Amino acid sequence: MVDFLMNIELNNDSTYQQQIREKLVELIEQDSFGDKPLPSGRKMAQLLKVSRNTIVLVYESLVDEGYLIARKRSGFFVHPDLSLEHTLSNTVQMLHDKASRQPNWSKRLQKTPSDLPTLNKDQNWFNYPYPFIYGHIDINNFPVCQWRECSRIAESKGKLHEWVEGFIDMDDPQLITQIRQQILSKRGISAKNDEVLITLGTQNSLFLLTSLLAEKSVIFGVENPGYASLRQIISLCDSPMKPLELDNEGIILGEQLKDCNYVCVTPSHQYPTTVTMSIDRRKALLEQACNDNFVVIEDDYESEVNFIEAPIPALKSYDQDGRVIYVGSLSKSLSPGIRIGYLVADKKVVKELRTLRNLHYRHPPSNNQRITALFIGQGYYDSHIRRMRRTYEAKWIEMQLGIDLYLKNCKIHSTSGSFCFWIGLPNGITSKELLNVAAEHGILIESGDILFMQPDAPKNYIRLGFSAIQTDKILKGLKILGKLIDDLYQ
Amino acid sequence: MVDFLMNIELNNDSTYQQQIREKLVELIEQDSFGDKPLPSGRKMAQLLKVSRNTIVLVYESLVDEGYLIARKRSGFFVHPDLSLEHTLSNTVQMLHDKASRQPNWSKRLQKTPSDLPTLNKDQNWFNYPYPFIYGHIDINNFPVCQWRECSRIAESKGKLHEWVEGFIDMDDPQLITQIRQQILSKRGISAKNDEVLITLGTQNSLFLLTSLLAEKSVIFGVENPGYASLRQIISLCDSPMKPLELDNEGIILGEQLKDCNYVCVTPSHQYPTTVTMSIDRRKALLEQACNDNFVVIEDDYESEVNFIEAPIPALKSYDQDGRVIYVGSLSKSLSPGIRIGYLVADKKVVKELRTLRNLHYRHPPSNNQRITALFIGQGYYDSHIRRMRRTYEAKWIEMQLGIDLYLKNCKIHSTSGSFCFWIGLPNGITSKELLNVAAEHGILIESGDILFMQPDAPKNYIRLGFSAIQTDKILKGLKILGKLIDDLYQ
Repeated sequence: MVDFLMNIELNNDSTYQQQIREKLVELIEQDSFGDKPLPSGRKMAQLLKVSRNTIVLVYESLVDEGYLIARKRSGFFVHPDLSLEHTLSNTVQMLHDKASRQPNWSKRLQKTPSDLPTLNKDQNWFNYPYPFIYGHIDINNFPVCQWRECSRIAESKGKLHEWVEGFIDMDDPQLITQIRQQILSKRGISAKNDEVLITLGTQNSLFLLTSLLAEKSVIFGVENPGYASLRQIISLCDSPMKPLELDNEGIILGEQLKDCNYVCVTPSHQYPTTVTMSIDRRKALLEQACNDNFVVIEDDYESEVNFIEAPIPALKSYDQDGRVIYVGSLSKSLSPGIRIGYLVADKKVVKELRTLRNLHYRHPPSNNQRITALFIGQGYYDSHIRRMRRTYEAKWIEMQLGIDLYLKNCKIHSTSGSFCFWIGLPNGITSKELLNVAAEHGILIESGDILFMQPDAPKNYIRLGFSAIQTDKILKGLKILGKLIDDLYQ
Repeated sequence: MVDFLMNIELNNDSTYQQQIREKLVELIEQDSFGDKPLPSGRKMAQLLKVSRNTIVLVYESLVDEGYLIARKRSGFFVHPDLSLEHTLSNTVQMLHDKASRQPNWSKRLQKTPSDLPTLNKDQNWFNYPYPFIYGHIDINNFPVCQWRECSRIAESKGKLHEWVEGFIDMDDPQLITQIRQQILSKRGISAKNDEVLITLGTQNSLFLLTSLLAEKSVIFGVENPGYASLRQIISLCDSPMKPLELDNEGIILGEQLKDCNYVCVTPSHQYPTTVTMSIDRRKALLEQACNDNFVVIEDDYESEVNFIEAPIPALKSYDQDGRVIYVGSLSKSLSPGIRIGYLVADKKVVKELRTLRNLHYRHPPSNNQRITALFIGQGYYDSHIRRMRRTYEAKWIEMQLGIDLYLKNCKIHSTSGSFCFWIGLPNGITSKELLNVAAEHGILIESGDILFMQPDAPKNYIRLGFSAIQTDKILKGLKILGKLIDDLYQ
């Protein structure tokens, strides 16, 4: 009994009476008391740290409602009619072995996605002095005041009706306009309203696309190493995948793409090697897409994070033949919590995706769509990107310096930006081995193993992210890491 | 320049500053000014018929955000860094036959979900004087101040870090607690943290569930008439469906459920007939679920909208054997735009659903999760439900009255609540026929045809929703409708 009662977490949102009564009704329903008396008012009051009067009032109201009866000098009991009900159902229950009555879930689950290998993110990364991890934004950069201002406008009485009802299967027209005019245009892309769809981020765009396009006989070419979640989504749809080889200009064209129906690429900064696809390679890829009849899915990943040159226009901007489906998001540039992404595709494709999206979850929350539209429209997104670029540039320079100084034995991919560096360890050192030693020295790094598709992939790649680590910790962290690598190498 | 500026039609939807600023950012983005100065504050003020001060404030804020620079004695110019960015342009023109190079999308689309029949919602419903439609909330009821208060708390500087980064594959622990303590407990359900998952609403919960559980050999029993979107989701997964017959206590038990693997029900108010499943039927359904080894999916739909009696505890609350998966949402009770739903299931199931959700879209936006948690925690959700119930009760009584008075020839299902009435027209009148005549008289009603599964279903059912229509229009609208029915009947 005591255990049950300890579960009442009394709060101030409703009266104690109400909360206690609610819990007692639940317990009575569950036949927790049988034919034993309920704890006395005084005992119960002590247990719950409320006044005795509160308990008495609750008990009396339960008597009025026929849940309890009061027996003189013995206390309060569950009403026999109720007990009878429970006895009956209990008897029926006794006839069955309880375990056998429960569904056999391991048989019923058609898939067990939790068995898929995942990047094990250490949730306690902030406890490490040197967290060289990837995928965290620097929260101090979030434009609090500007976001609040836009949120306040969207939530004002006169504006509310525009989003409270939701958009059924449509998007916020203001957000579509802003994304077209201020985000896509900067990537060289011009798209009509019916060629753009708002999603819940890149992950969701890719999921919607594979739901529509994947099938047992449809081959997806994926970069190797590449984005593990993309491979997981495709494998959910039973589509065969072909790992694509890369060089220092992006994926290698020619033979390896010939039998692909879709080729998934990250041209701005290849995930995870950070290699930028050259303009010549972009043009040639589109030419081959026409000749060999494949469609390119462009994840325009970290296009905003370019520190040394003007960014190359998106692959989509060179696309004259509708051969590119373009995917972008605000997760890396603004906040992954808000979950706003977008895709650009042929209007036939967008129409079907819109219907699918409607069946999957209706639409991305309309308040977030509207706040984001205001945020972009007021110029806050652009100025935020500019500020962010400056902040991260300082870190990136520090990283370059430290890697040059301390990671001499490693193979480094030169890069024009991104939030990370992709690093090949000297032969004989595995990433897992270094990861463990580094953790002991307060350094958090990521193994690249899971980003390779084939089981016999190289085991000596690591990714060093720098969005979470403080600028002044970078050099010191890399120095220690370099020492650890050198020690392992000897 | 002048032409551009003439395009700003200032309205009262937002401040002039905001509108002018937005337009200027757009013009800057389009490189409309080049290296010329922007019009002076005075000139611009004259053009737009606003005060000069307004323009000065806008210009200054654009300087702060790095869009403009002020040059002494020369005025305001676009920041040179921005102009440089615009030199990026691509003029790739290819001389190919365009059509033949484009992908053949009709061949590539693995499904065309847009071909599925849908409820045709008239987007211009508010133009009808008598919109007896379903699924719209009364926006005037939305608790603006309370929502804004919670939004302000969630967006305060000290709180921001809790959601800006997102939750990876987890949920806001505060929201889980609030849903358990304040929503599920009122439905008689006690669930552990790892038995609850936040989703983007009921549609999304059902989609995640079918993604995990459906398969060619798995039979889903669905209520008939019933929720059309559920049937569409199940058909996406190629699972066979079995239409289930109903009586005035809910779905009929026995033979028809025997071969089902899953039985999907809406016990609070059956969709669309509004019939409430009796307690005896609930208990017997669970008993049969054990004996015939099926699992019940309970969509606890409109449980808050009960006008004449205390609501019956959820089916899930009677479930001793883990035979019920429970689905609920805040879409009908608070706002469909915010897209917050939840489900309760065995922790094994929740674990796999969580992984699937992560692959589909990561998680419902974390800011909305937090705002909703605060909103429930502050007791605002409960008091909103109470207010809402009072508002709709008045409408519901008016509906009852009008239907009794004017729809004498129709078959009416008595009900304890819901936002609609399910009405059988006199023999010989089809819903489509009435729908057209009614529309000519300013009355919007919904045909029930699409809610039936079989093609030879009755064609004489309509649904009359009352959440959108004004209370004082109800009687008058029903009077006209009754007259139209009588005319068709003669």
